[in-house]
Amino acid sequence: MKIPSLILKQMYTLGSLENAEDGVRFSLKNRLSNATLTKINEVRIDDRPVPLDRLFMEVNGEEIAASQVSPNSALAFPLARVVRVHAQTGQLDKGQHEIFLSVNTEPFGALSFKVKDTIAERVKRTSVPHDKDNDYTPEIVRARQSFVEEYTGVKLQHINKFSFDPSVTRGNIENFTGVAQVPIGFAGPLKINGEHAQGEFLIPLATAEGTLVASYNRGMKVLNLSGGVTCTVVGDSMQRAPVFVFDNARDGRDFVQWVDENLARIREEAEGTSSVAKLTYIDRYLSNKLVFLRFNYTTGDAAGQNMVGRATFAACSWILESFPKIRHFYLESNFATDKKSSQINVMRTRGKRVTAECVIPRDVLIQNMRVDPETLHYHAGISNVGAFMSGANNNGCHSPNGITAMFIATGQDVANVAESSAGIVYTEVTQERDLYLSITIPSLIVATHGGGTALATQRECLELLGCVGKGKVNKLAEIVAGVVLAGEISLAAAISSLDWVSSHEQYGRNR
Amino acid sequence: MKIPSLILKQMYTLGSLENAEDGVRFSLKNRLSNATLTKINEVRIDDRPVPLDRLFMEVNGEEIAASQVSPNSALAFPLARVVRVHAQTGQLDKGQHEIFLSVNTEPFGALSFKVKDTIAERVKRTSVPHDKDNDYTPEIVRARQSFVEEYTGVKLQHINKFSFDPSVTRGNIENFTGVAQVPIGFAGPLKINGEHAQGEFLIPLATAEGTLVASYNRGMKVLNLSGGVTCTVVGDSMQRAPVFVFDNARDGRDFVQWVDENLARIREEAEGTSSVAKLTYIDRYLSNKLVFLRFNYTTGDAAGQNMVGRATFAACSWILESFPKIRHFYLESNFATDKKSSQINVMRTRGKRVTAECVIPRDVLIQNMRVDPETLHYHAGISNVGAFMSGANNNGCHSPNGITAMFIATGQDVANVAESSAGIVYTEVTQERDLYLSITIPSLIVATHGGGTALATQRECLELLGCVGKGKVNKLAEIVAGVVLAGEISLAAAISSLDWVSSHEQYGRNR
Amino acid sequence: MKIPSLILKQMYTLGSLENAEDGVRFSLKNRLSNATLTKINEVRIDDRPVPLDRLFMEVNGEEIAASQVSPNSALAFPLARVVRVHAQTGQLDKGQHEIFLSVNTEPFGALSFKVKDTIAERVKRTSVPHDKDNDYTPEIVRARQSFVEEYTGVKLQHINKFSFDPSVTRGNIENFTGVAQVPIGFAGPLKINGEHAQGEFLIPLATAEGTLVASYNRGMKVLNLSGGVTCTVVGDSMQRAPVFVFDNARDGRDFVQWVDENLARIREEAEGTSSVAKLTYIDRYLSNKLVFLRFNYTTGDAAGQNMVGRATFAACSWILESFPKIRHFYLESNFATDKKSSQINVMRTRGKRVTAECVIPRDVLIQNMRVDPETLHYHAGISNVGAFMSGANNNGCHSPNGITAMFIATGQDVANVAESSAGIVYTEVTQERDLYLSITIPSLIVATHGGGTALATQRECLELLGCVGKGKVNKLAEIVAGVVLAGEISLAAAISSLDWVSSHEQYGRNR
Amino acid sequence: MKIPSLILKQMYTLGSLENAEDGVRFSLKNRLSNATLTKINEVRIDDRPVPLDRLFMEVNGEEIAASQVSPNSALAFPLARVVRVHAQTGQLDKGQHEIFLSVNTEPFGALSFKVKDTIAERVKRTSVPHDKDNDYTPEIVRARQSFVEEYTGVKLQHINKFSFDPSVTRGNIENFTGVAQVPIGFAGPLKINGEHAQGEFLIPLATAEGTLVASYNRGMKVLNLSGGVTCTVVGDSMQRAPVFVFDNARDGRDFVQWVDENLARIREEAEGTSSVAKLTYIDRYLSNKLVFLRFNYTTGDAAGQNMVGRATFAACSWILESFPKIRHFYLESNFATDKKSSQINVMRTRGKRVTAECVIPRDVLIQNMRVDPETLHYHAGISNVGAFMSGANNNGCHSPNGITAMFIATGQDVANVAESSAGIVYTEVTQERDLYLSITIPSLIVATHGGGTALATQRECLELLGCVGKGKVNKLAEIVAGVVLAGEISLAAAISSLDWVSSHEQYGRNR
Repeated sequence: MKIPSLILKQMYTLGSLENAEDGVRFSLKNRLSNATLTKINEVRIDDRPVPLDRLFMEVNGEEIAASQVSPNSALAFPLARVVRVHAQTGQLDKGQHEIFLSVNTEPFGALSFKVKDTIAERVKRTSVPHDKDNDYTPEIVRARQSFVEEYTGVKLQHINKFSFDPSVTRGNIENFTGVAQVPIGFAGPLKINGEHAQGEFLIPLATAEGTLVASYNRGMKVLNLSGGVTCTVVGDSMQRAPVFVFDNARDGRDFVQWVDENLARIREEAEGTSSVAKLTYIDRYLSNKLVFLRFNYTTGDAAGQNMVGRATFAACSWILESFPKIRHFYLESNFATDKKSSQINVMRTRGKRVTAECVIPRDVLIQNMRVDPETLHYHAGISNVGAFMSGANNNGCHSPNGITAMFIATGQDVANVAESSAGIVYTEVTQERDLYLSITIPSLIVATHGGGTALATQRECLELLGCVGKGKVNKLAEIVAGVVLAGEISLAAAISSLDWVSSHEQYGRNR
Repeated sequence: MKIPSLILKQMYTLGSLENAEDGVRFSLKNRLSNATLTKINEVRIDDRPVPLDRLFMEVNGEEIAASQVSPNSALAFPLARVVRVHAQTGQLDKGQHEIFLSVNTEPFGALSFKVKDTIAERVKRTSVPHDKDNDYTPEIVRARQSFVEEYTGVKLQHINKFSFDPSVTRGNIENFTGVAQVPIGFAGPLKINGEHAQGEFLIPLATAEGTLVASYNRGMKVLNLSGGVTCTVVGDSMQRAPVFVFDNARDGRDFVQWVDENLARIREEAEGTSSVAKLTYIDRYLSNKLVFLRFNYTTGDAAGQNMVGRATFAACSWILESFPKIRHFYLESNFATDKKSSQINVMRTRGKRVTAECVIPRDVLIQNMRVDPETLHYHAGISNVGAFMSGANNNGCHSPNGITAMFIATGQDVANVAESSAGIVYTEVTQERDLYLSITIPSLIVATHGGGTALATQRECLELLGCVGKGKVNKLAEIVAGVVLAGEISLAAAISSLDWVSSHEQYGRNR
Repeated sequence: MKIPSLILKQMYTLGSLENAEDGVRFSLKNRLSNATLTKINEVRIDDRPVPLDRLFMEVNGEEIAASQVSPNSALAFPLARVVRVHAQTGQLDKGQHEIFLSVNTEPFGALSFKVKDTIAERVKRTSVPHDKDNDYTPEIVRARQSFVEEYTGVKLQHINKFSFDPSVTRGNIENFTGVAQVPIGFAGPLKINGEHAQGEFLIPLATAEGTLVASYNRGMKVLNLSGGVTCTVVGDSMQRAPVFVFDNARDGRDFVQWVDENLARIREEAEGTSSVAKLTYIDRYLSNKLVFLRFNYTTGDAAGQNMVGRATFAACSWILESFPKIRHFYLESNFATDKKSSQINVMRTRGKRVTAECVIPRDVLIQNMRVDPETLHYHAGISNVGAFMSGANNNGCHSPNGITAMFIATGQDVANVAESSAGIVYTEVTQERDLYLSITIPSLIVATHGGGTALATQRECLELLGCVGKGKVNKLAEIVAGVVLAGEISLAAAISSLDWVSSHEQYGRNR
Repeated sequence: MKIPSLILKQMYTLGSLENAEDGVRFSLKNRLSNATLTKINEVRIDDRPVPLDRLFMEVNGEEIAASQVSPNSALAFPLARVVRVHAQTGQLDKGQHEIFLSVNTEPFGALSFKVKDTIAERVKRTSVPHDKDNDYTPEIVRARQSFVEEYTGVKLQHINKFSFDPSVTRGNIENFTGVAQVPIGFAGPLKINGEHAQGEFLIPLATAEGTLVASYNRGMKVLNLSGGVTCTVVGDSMQRAPVFVFDNARDGRDFVQWVDENLARIREEAEGTSSVAKLTYIDRYLSNKLVFLRFNYTTGDAAGQNMVGRATFAACSWILESFPKIRHFYLESNFATDKKSSQINVMRTRGKRVTAECVIPRDVLIQNMRVDPETLHYHAGISNVGAFMSGANNNGCHSPNGITAMFIATGQDVANVAESSAGIVYTEVTQERDLYLSITIPSLIVATHGGGTALATQRECLELLGCVGKGKVNKLAEIVAGVVLAGEISLAAAISSLDWVSSHEQYGRNR
């Protein structure tokens, strides 16, 4: 198997050169796919060969003399690992040096790498205390708290108060030092007629925005009086979107056809990285000599951004090995579009595409919200013009308010409010002169597993909603959508009837 | 002064009809502007006059017999207040009734109102415990905690743990019951060369996303090695965008001209509502027979959404009184565009428009991030195509990650991540072959006063950043922008050099 | 087979009621699918039955007594035809009347229709002369010219001069009266390295914009000196996008699944309407209770908008018959998006997606355009920011100029400039320091058959380009793209080097 | 007055080096502003000085010995002119040479320029015949026709037929060879209630799309029956949008403030270039270290793109002289956005912003279009969702059809269909259950002067509309808008009632 040099260069990195006590060390990182080293042919530093008996290789804590590496005594070199090379040939001067390495591998045959790297002066910089062995002990957390107090001159009284063992945060944060305490108020109960969420739910909203809980609560009352809110997950898709650069558009077009023909194998490579991620389809967007492939997956109860990143990377590794005309490759180039609002996500879903809808009887609306269906529908028509002209990603009122409050409460990746802020509101006055009101959230990214969902208060809120355990993510999506619709009817009615400002006045603001 | 009936109808609401012990009560809300009631002419219920001696008016807790209201004994009726009318004429049956009220006012002369309202059956519904007198006492908070536990069957262990007095949350949340504890890790220090933020800052990041703190920290190191990040606030604007509906486009166009001619008075009305808000200019967008006016303000250290809502409402009240041809009016219609991503905010700023920029020396980039300026710049060019085709609101990597983590830590309105997620990244390879990297965040909504900034952990984090006290909001904006640029260089380099997936692998994910 | 009444109402229209000499006439239009009438059961006017022997049915010029219609003597009633009903029961008064019609059909069984229609007063209105039998004779054309002269008082001297027989315009225009003479200038020859267009082409450009031909000519010289322009059609898709309304989102989601399961049959129905149109795939976009299906076709040498309209209508007729839960249906609702610029067309192609690209040697660029690759690439980077912030559908210079001039010359539907104006320009400075420049036109709608391509001068221009005959449409697409790139390099260089204004000055403007 | 070297480099171009009979010639172009040369200090070629007595300068056909240039005998060097330098020092070899020129000027003092240029091999290339002295004589036109026939082997029969003197096309086209004959059909008359267009107008539509004229005609009948269409120009603005690059964002922000302070002078410079163009305001868009200034003008009866280009260039010349920190400058960078659809033009107008509106009585709609107001309004609501999700620039039906047909007929720049394709449709069902229908075209670019408006058939069509003479451009804009609304009601009704496909069928297509 022959690897194009472009891929070699991208997939292996030689570097991290540093002086050791008796020579130098440097690393070779493997990002291509599993391999074994079957022979070390040659190492040169600044064009001077390093005798093989002065050379040692370390993978995963085991060190072996370079001369002992052989087909029968091959060195495992799996994906995402580092071989640390140790040359006992004296230290190097500060500045730039050239390293050359030639090895035999299975299954890629002879590979050689060359790079310029630098012996840098070690500068002592202030940095947050860190414990290499276990960075989540009470001791290192206290050390960091002390460091923060000393560095800033501020005595910590609040962020250092939390109710859980710091080790819970492993995998969720680095340099854990304390917590932000975000107030939680409860709204509801809200009656939800979902496929997954059925019944009445008490809603924890974590926010510091006065009137938010009251406003959502008011909307929930209206929805309940209308028989509850109907919620449906109509789409489910998480993406990673690598880009491939070719010599010209024609090669790019041929590549897309090749991808179609090899979809089964690509799926196999992608799905081999996870027992959960399923590759549903690959969208392709051609521009100039660039081909953007948007890989779409389902990801179980996880939001799945990392899962699909790994899966797509594995698939692309196989693609890069197999299609020779690729000139550049990047795992992401703004077609996913993670943590961004985009038209593509509005159209083609990111996370869950979920719709909440309700027919609000005329009398319920008038008596509770002081507005009739016609007035609210009329305002919605005007709002559509506003959203269309201003280029907004949402023609409704304020869905991100409820989404954000639930995201913080339940341990979602709150930065996904960027995507989740999109919304499409649609209203009708029915023949019975009631109000049909609905919102579709086309890119709601929620999880009941992974991310911050196992943290202390976060998991507790998921428990309150009955969303802990396997197969609960669509339930959570439905609940969020139902809450959002409560907020829409509340604010839409307030704007239409002008109640809105006065409700802010009544509850006051923290000034 | 004559008020068109449309405005009357919109600005005053007759309603909240209910049976009292000895008759009925209903309300008249005033949303127009300050007035006094100088005479009660007539009240009719279902077309039957109510004798004036059976009629009582209550404003602000004071009750007065209707017959006693006179020019010399006028009843104050300020903006946003309610007159409660009490008619001692026996109770009404369930169902719909018509109320008519005629009064004399200053300065509007004789006004009369008619509405159909309903005596509703009171249904007992489950609701979260609430204390009308003081909803922030430890007792009512505990009552709510118990209610939540009973309702859901979940024993609270974490969200009921917090380090502050519940009364601190007044104005920030209703039905306060506990807190979400979001982990905080510290990154930095980061050297910022701002006009307001100068020096090194330790950055609190509240997040549950593994690798986020580490990634930003890595970027900060690079920026520090490059001499720090230069941050500048280049725009400042908070909006409210009412819409006015006319009979036709021609009236709308004439209205805009009239607004121009009366700008001084409009400004006076708007600014009269606050000592802080300053009306900078009014943008106008005409479509069909609709006129959207986008009022732009500066709002001191506050984010200012409510402040500008009040100011704009006051201005519009005067406009509605003064320009006769308006047929409908709504205080908002998706031109602000609050809690939404929009092209108009990218173009014309919402909150702070702030730029962070840095020239990263070639060697610093290569040695720390394993990528050269040309490669990163090349990838940025491809990313631009991706963002352009996908219709994203951000051509960079992940600015909302840093923004969200700082928003949660410092008590910002996190739902504004919707707007704040927009970003414009621009790169150059300089003549010295270094990397110029910058990001403009066109709609960063931050505050150091109001909202959640006075809450316990939130204020502590602001203190750590030296952002407590008057005139600190631009300092905070600069710090956020600097942090964001750290995240951009970190992820951009990782994508360009492919380090990105492996860094996720190394730190692991909480699965 | 049972037809829901909704569909009946939409698919058949009863109307066009008018008094005849001896009674009344009215029509029944069939828009559902082919049927036969096997019995006329009953006709009532204003609830008075019309005796069947006074009733006559006319389809396609043949009249038959209602009483004679029977299964053995069925009346053909194909799609898109009108049955004219003639009731010899005396005239009706002016004003509204109710018509009721009940028939037996194959295959739909008994159908009945009721409508209110009006006998209108015939008002004599000025209208353009029209000849029902043959509206394309020299006589009626002259009559129209005289009418225009009389109506306006302007003596025609130019628009009445044309070089072809008016009958050529049948199917292309109604009320044909003359021509617009749009100046044609030639640019080139341009060397094109396409898959379909190979060699040098002389380019007819129909325009009134001074400097346009000169500017494109200059660009062609540069492309020729660079070895010619490489053009590739990378996508081909014409759409029609009906919308289906359901009771709720859940029904809509189930419908999409049903469509997937019935794709083969849907394709059969669609493709049965044309020997050319091939249904490639159906995109689905769900929002609220609405389902937008975007049918994608290839359409041979035709642009195909009408072809895919018919095909989609046929498919939808079957869908409407077969899926019971559809509440409303419209054949179009802004998801196609015909004659509009849209993000969806930029992403997902409309017409041809075609890329033109060229590596322009450094010396060629500098010597001919006075600008070096770096400067032009630098400006392109800035232009990207401009296009991104302004929300433009094109980050290049002026592709619509060349497209429009070729569209007019070659008989394209020029209104498609709306879609065809989109463009994605991408540049690189190569390792050899030459300039890679390319443009992708994602929604270029061209035809070599149908529309205006058979008109006199239009066909002549297609002949000059070697684009007459079967299978030439991709050749034309490649030529247009090549021409567009010539214009891009010309104007981009001019802006970068500031030649641009002066070139306008030199050639002057017609003022 | 000192000129920064950046501007010098951009504003003067040394070049066009070529061998002459007795030496070499090269040029200096002036794009900065008017100047005079008061002394020629030195010329060096390849670092060898040219004796001043062997040196001659030519401006505008007059030649003068370099030695004779003096303050008293200064050489005029106005903006946009070229000084041709003639050095009688022998010819140069093929290849690159360096030229150096030093002169004294008024008012800029001593200036010196250096450039590398190339003596190129003259390659004989096929090109379209051209007559330097008069390229619009019948002879050169015939020569081109012959060339086209020979080159392509196609005998011209149609494009060489036209009814005017070729010299009419001067300033409108280069290499004029013939015409495209685009069929014109007349629709109407249409009753327009404008401020400028009042009465009934017969509408020339140049198109090859079957059913278009018939469809618009049908719509006009409905509008006439409704009392005519009300049209209003509500905005007027033509733009040029230069970009300025700074060292950093802070300089950019300070620049904008400086622009505000110097607006009067900038206006003076801009308006000095034309008696017509008036600078209304300058929009500013800051991103990174870039400042986009969008200059807005009114331009009388002309479309004005070139007029505002010149005016903005003049203003920028003064700006570049006066504000020292500008690092790069380009006259355009996709913020205008000429020949593109963009959100900024939808929001902020390009050309005319014009609204057409009509209340169509219920009976008129039902009797003529077979659809009731509620159905059409319902479909409009669904179309809004479609346009919003698909990212279209138009939520209506097909305004570009009518616009394009009128643009071709009346000599507009048809490529502006890109901008003019945007549209905002808004409907209401009135309290009387009639239909309010309107469209705003936010960027309709029309002219009655300049461009193609003086061509033969084009001017004739303007005459038919009464749009020839001063001050007619708003009249034309109103007529176009009225025609567009006719097309909207026609197609909207057809889609809503499904007439649409069948009307295509009935008129047939030219296949």
